[in-house]
Amino acid sequence: MSYTSAGQTHTYEPLSSVSWGGDHLILLDQRLLPEDIVYLKLYTPEEVWEGIHSMKVRGAPAIGIAAAFGVVLGGLQYAGDQPGEWLQQVRTTCDYLATSRPTAVNLFWALDRIKLTAEKLAETLSDRTALNAALLAEAEAIRAEDEDVCRRIGENALPLFKDGMGILTHCNAGGLATAKYGTALAPMYLAHEQGMNIKVFADETRPVLQGARLTAFELQQAGIDVTLLADNMAAMVMSKGWVQAVIVGTDRVAANGDVANKIGTYGLAVLAKAHGIPFYVACPLSTIDLNTKTGADIPIEERPAEEITEGFGKRTAPHGVKVYNPAFDVTPNEYVTAIITEKGMVQAPYSENLKKLFE
Amino acid sequence: MSYTSAGQTHTYEPLSSVSWGGDHLILLDQRLLPEDIVYLKLYTPEEVWEGIHSMKVRGAPAIGIAAAFGVVLGGLQYAGDQPGEWLQQVRTTCDYLATSRPTAVNLFWALDRIKLTAEKLAETLSDRTALNAALLAEAEAIRAEDEDVCRRIGENALPLFKDGMGILTHCNAGGLATAKYGTALAPMYLAHEQGMNIKVFADETRPVLQGARLTAFELQQAGIDVTLLADNMAAMVMSKGWVQAVIVGTDRVAANGDVANKIGTYGLAVLAKAHGIPFYVACPLSTIDLNTKTGADIPIEERPAEEITEGFGKRTAPHGVKVYNPAFDVTPNEYVTAIITEKGMVQAPYSENLKKLFE
Repeated sequence: MSYTSAGQTHTYEPLSSVSWGGDHLILLDQRLLPEDIVYLKLYTPEEVWEGIHSMKVRGAPAIGIAAAFGVVLGGLQYAGDQPGEWLQQVRTTCDYLATSRPTAVNLFWALDRIKLTAEKLAETLSDRTALNAALLAEAEAIRAEDEDVCRRIGENALPLFKDGMGILTHCNAGGLATAKYGTALAPMYLAHEQGMNIKVFADETRPVLQGARLTAFELQQAGIDVTLLADNMAAMVMSKGWVQAVIVGTDRVAANGDVANKIGTYGLAVLAKAHGIPFYVACPLSTIDLNTKTGADIPIEERPAEEITEGFGKRTAPHGVKVYNPAFDVTPNEYVTAIITEKGMVQAPYSENLKKLFE
Repeated sequence: MSYTSAGQTHTYEPLSSVSWGGDHLILLDQRLLPEDIVYLKLYTPEEVWEGIHSMKVRGAPAIGIAAAFGVVLGGLQYAGDQPGEWLQQVRTTCDYLATSRPTAVNLFWALDRIKLTAEKLAETLSDRTALNAALLAEAEAIRAEDEDVCRRIGENALPLFKDGMGILTHCNAGGLATAKYGTALAPMYLAHEQGMNIKVFADETRPVLQGARLTAFELQQAGIDVTLLADNMAAMVMSKGWVQAVIVGTDRVAANGDVANKIGTYGLAVLAKAHGIPFYVACPLSTIDLNTKTGADIPIEERPAEEITEGFGKRTAPHGVKVYNPAFDVTPNEYVTAIITEKGMVQAPYSENLKKLFE
């Protein structure tokens, strides 16, 4: 990717969060960013499960891609010559990887898609090498499609952007959360490529600090004007008139337009409304789950207390203190100005309009 | 202090944030809590200035008390026998200590009070030992009065509390921020002493984590049910119906009832209003500054980027990233349900009713 600043063109290679290494999954360990850039080689579904569970890979689309490759690793472990047994192995791997995290629907979407592909393959192919190659092709397709989808989300969101605009985002819905470009950050990259001046405010996003460690990092790398904030500073920045739009990603959109996303998103949506600032959600169709009726039906993962009490490499709270650490919250649809997908922008009434996207 | 749990009475000694050691100021280093309990001995105004500036002592009332003792240290440095020269030394120390932090008005209040006392003393006493002893008595009085005032704030807030109630607080307006009891936490200690069951939610309060390190610590020590949250979780906790009141301290209340307090307070006030939850501010009269017309006139301290990017011994953001780090924000009076002082509770219209407190 490249950008122009003061008449000079800068090119840079964005970090790739998930890719295939021939016989293993290559995962950028996002827990260690931005200080250390470490690529992990994962050879087993168990390693992929752990990578997702411990948030070495995170971001709803990236989790889906990693899981798809994880299923391929499961298929590769089959040493026999019975397509039915191979399929059983693949199905077991799918069920296993589905338990790695509960909230992001892309995980289940990708696993369903790759399982369906495996079922079809097992009917037509008999050689395990051919089966594995075809399954890998499907995982690669999921990855490639995500990159294309993210670019289209960016194009669809771009008309909302204006020169000189201030935009606030939360967590990381960027290139690191996807195959490339990101969802919420995609229009920022496109605006910047076109020479538009935008000013991004990135919440640090406690407890895991994806905003500080990932969003600030990837926007800075791209030469985009980014200012880091502690989460509790967003309201003040809004009250100063510095923010004209809030844009975030999501882990699951329910059929009625309720949005599950990183903890803190709901509060931002309430604050945006109180300040008359539009609140946008950017996501691929694979994040919209018409089978989930409302936000109340989305399981919200609770994570270990230590993410809060010793997240900075040092104990920052008394031992034995009670902690509440939900990883996500749900923003009711009435706070969502629009949902931006690869098929265009959707507004209320969401129950009707989200359904139309899939027709 | 003591409390009863499961029929057993527990006694404990709360940590003292500021006290006098005979010829030096004893300061609990709040930067190191809760892991390390370190008392510093400060012998010079310069050491006190640094202690306030670096937030080893923090909390508006505690800053005022520390500054008063700092002036005493300045007086003790005078080796001559001219009351006029001694007074000049005291005045210079007052002006110097006033530059240590800009937002908390108690700092200026305490310095003005001790300077006025010094002026009167210099007219009647001629011996520097007597002058210093009388000035120390005034600093001790400021400290003792604060303890009494905090207890009365607690008594005045107590009628707002009900058995089983959930209360959310931000930063630390507890015993560590004052001589004893605190402001926002004072009614919690009194409710607990009376056997009332309350459930406190403490925001961790980025960047310096006073909520995690201090509020959770002192409430836990007192046997009060406290749950630690990351700041961005408050909205979700409110939406679940777990919070019936928000209560915070303040660093300065303007004449119109606008409230400066730790960054994040304003956002909480907006969220409380959106959820129909009352928002209370607890403070001594010394925090109310009728000379400051509105919140717009309160200087807001900005602190170093490193508090956000490497706050706890570990780098958590890319090098060179821009950071916005205001230490305080201003909550407009329309979000404040009531201000609770040692002279009772005040509600809108604040411009009228705050003035009455001083009559």
